[in-house]
Amino acid sequence: MNPAETTVHTLCMNARRAARGPWQFHREIKDMALRSWARALRENAPSILEANAQDVAEARGRGQSEALVDRLALDAKRVEAMAGSIEQVAALDDPVGEIIETRTRPNGLKVSRMRVPIGVIAMIYESRPNVTAEASALAVKAGNAIVLRGGSEAMRSNRAIERAIREASGKFVPEDVVQLVPLTDRDAVRALVQETELVDLAIPRGGEALIRFVTENARVPVVQHYKGVCHLFVDRGADVEQATRIAVNAKLSRPGVCNALECLLVDAADDARLLPPIAKALLAGGCQLRCDERALSLVPSGTRAEESDWGKEFLDAILAVRVVDGLKGALDHVARYGSGHTEAICTPNEEHAATWRLGVDAACVVVNASTRFHDGGELGLGAEIGIATSRLHWRGPMGLEALTTHKWIVEGSGQIR
Amino acid sequence: MNPAETTVHTLCMNARRAARGPWQFHREIKDMALRSWARALRENAPSILEANAQDVAEARGRGQSEALVDRLALDAKRVEAMAGSIEQVAALDDPVGEIIETRTRPNGLKVSRMRVPIGVIAMIYESRPNVTAEASALAVKAGNAIVLRGGSEAMRSNRAIERAIREASGKFVPEDVVQLVPLTDRDAVRALVQETELVDLAIPRGGEALIRFVTENARVPVVQHYKGVCHLFVDRGADVEQATRIAVNAKLSRPGVCNALECLLVDAADDARLLPPIAKALLAGGCQLRCDERALSLVPSGTRAEESDWGKEFLDAILAVRVVDGLKGALDHVARYGSGHTEAICTPNEEHAATWRLGVDAACVVVNASTRFHDGGELGLGAEIGIATSRLHWRGPMGLEALTTHKWIVEGSGQIR
Repeated sequence: MNPAETTVHTLCMNARRAARGPWQFHREIKDMALRSWARALRENAPSILEANAQDVAEARGRGQSEALVDRLALDAKRVEAMAGSIEQVAALDDPVGEIIETRTRPNGLKVSRMRVPIGVIAMIYESRPNVTAEASALAVKAGNAIVLRGGSEAMRSNRAIERAIREASGKFVPEDVVQLVPLTDRDAVRALVQETELVDLAIPRGGEALIRFVTENARVPVVQHYKGVCHLFVDRGADVEQATRIAVNAKLSRPGVCNALECLLVDAADDARLLPPIAKALLAGGCQLRCDERALSLVPSGTRAEESDWGKEFLDAILAVRVVDGLKGALDHVARYGSGHTEAICTPNEEHAATWRLGVDAACVVVNASTRFHDGGELGLGAEIGIATSRLHWRGPMGLEALTTHKWIVEGSGQIR
Repeated sequence: MNPAETTVHTLCMNARRAARGPWQFHREIKDMALRSWARALRENAPSILEANAQDVAEARGRGQSEALVDRLALDAKRVEAMAGSIEQVAALDDPVGEIIETRTRPNGLKVSRMRVPIGVIAMIYESRPNVTAEASALAVKAGNAIVLRGGSEAMRSNRAIERAIREASGKFVPEDVVQLVPLTDRDAVRALVQETELVDLAIPRGGEALIRFVTENARVPVVQHYKGVCHLFVDRGADVEQATRIAVNAKLSRPGVCNALECLLVDAADDARLLPPIAKALLAGGCQLRCDERALSLVPSGTRAEESDWGKEFLDAILAVRVVDGLKGALDHVARYGSGHTEAICTPNEEHAATWRLGVDAACVVVNASTRFHDGGELGLGAEIGIATSRLHWRGPMGLEALTTHKWIVEGSGQIR
């Protein structure tokens, strides 16, 4: 074992031990632990902010972008928000121990499936120190231990948060339910995702390079959070006011996030009525439109799209626009260029809506609403650890249920086979 | 790309294309396809048996064990059994398109989760040619395409079965929903489990070496089917007749399978009453008992267990026997030596049963019944593709539901965020 492997192995052994015990099935104990974390973050705000100030100064000194510094920086309000989200997780229903299904067999055996913790979760992430607290809260509420490997730029902040949480855990749950890997090299990530006996799930969250590194090196299950190349198809006969409102909200309310719109598709049978007013509103909102030939003829102030604009995640006030041959043309475009994240249709036609719901293969399929709703909070999960673009073990927003697995329970009165 | 990669890549591209289409959501079409396969297997029985005879002759010529030859060999009855299991799968309820949960948000959005096919499944297996037909039936009933990579010893049999199935598919579903990799080297397996864009799940079934190879090389999700080191704990006060019946059934009804008993634990507080009669029945059934010191004093005809006998999968009429310090001692032993497959308790005490249900971390926890019930058919799933010892994406018997994932569906009337 190299030194990174040795360190990581020890943490994972601790995590495995911590992830076994009656606390996993006792909601009150877990909630008391979480509320105690929230108090500890508030009490330790000064030392957390001091550690964070050092991280921020170092990042600035290294000439990091202001966008990165903004994701990294904490202030009193952000620490309070962290404490608040932990309390929100404490208030959520506990999925652990829930009986998912139950049946009685002809021989009298009672067969059921019970929701249980996954075990040890490895979270690999970048920049935002609030993930340290929020991912830990979700993992532990679902009865798991978590091993965190944050980015080097946030190491001091993450350690200060980890310390506060661990000190506040002891009276309720084992301290080692939350552990931060004190190493920032890639060796540590590799070691972590190759601990097949000790790590049950790896969740990488961050840039595409990080996610690819984890996927290529992992021997444990991975749930990826890849990019969102989200489409909106505006169907013939659509309410132009509704379509406009949805397109503007989906593209411009927060262009830098994964559920933002990246490509608008308009039905050729109705494009002269639909596209000009939608384009006008988007342009008025400061959006650049990259149009195919036919769209360009209806949107003179657009620019010509290149082939590489289809399927691109702009994460900016830029939108690809294409006129397609009806529902079939839209489905083909989405199948070819979509990233399986969020795909929306705006249509008055229930049959077309039904075809869209079945025919589009994505984590979230939306009818007559903004793509921005693809989010754990908006869909009613209370909180999320991210939005999975993987198909397995979970797809879409990962709330508490996504952090559990099941076991089968067979109860008899002496039956043999 | 090496030649194996090129071949595998082409098959996977075909599979991806086949795994997109309305057939996935139409139960009648899928069931007609499956019934047509069953007819085709019956009609083509002569050519399947001829191909199989060649495989068997070659295996014998190479001096393979009779156990392997028996797993490999087909006869008219086994072909009929294959056809019959496909018809049974056709008769099962279709999980695809089922709405798992649904809720309405305060803003009027209707949020639901729909069960959908996983996509492309890679099945890597050895010996038994019936897996070719039965795994294909389950995969396709759940709306998936399957790429099969069987063992070299069964290549001719598998090809004959694949040919019959594919020819019978065409009128109903794309032929490429079932494809056999025509290569038997490890390169082909590696290529298959590294097709991250085209393969959604790999299921290795076979010896531990094969499973480890897949796990270490895979970049796609894997559900493992590892060994079963199953325990039975006989608690104080247990009904000795019931405990005996369960122990004998669990150990001796079929010692070579993964849900067979491998270790008997007896409560020290009641061992003098419980162990002798249970041991007597096992010995009478031809079972060898490998006992710890204290068990040996109660079972003079046992042999002394070695440390390596704890946690061993004997797959034979051999049983490890240990006296433990009550429920706590049993839980500790199982946590240390169990393989997370099937763990049973025999107890009259409902409180102890409850502690066992919660406290044992295994795919299947059994109370007062034989470990042999941990099986898809016995638990009411109708059929299974194997018993997963993985925690994710599935745990325990993999029926149709385990071959699906979900998508989120959001339906609105113009909502924006």
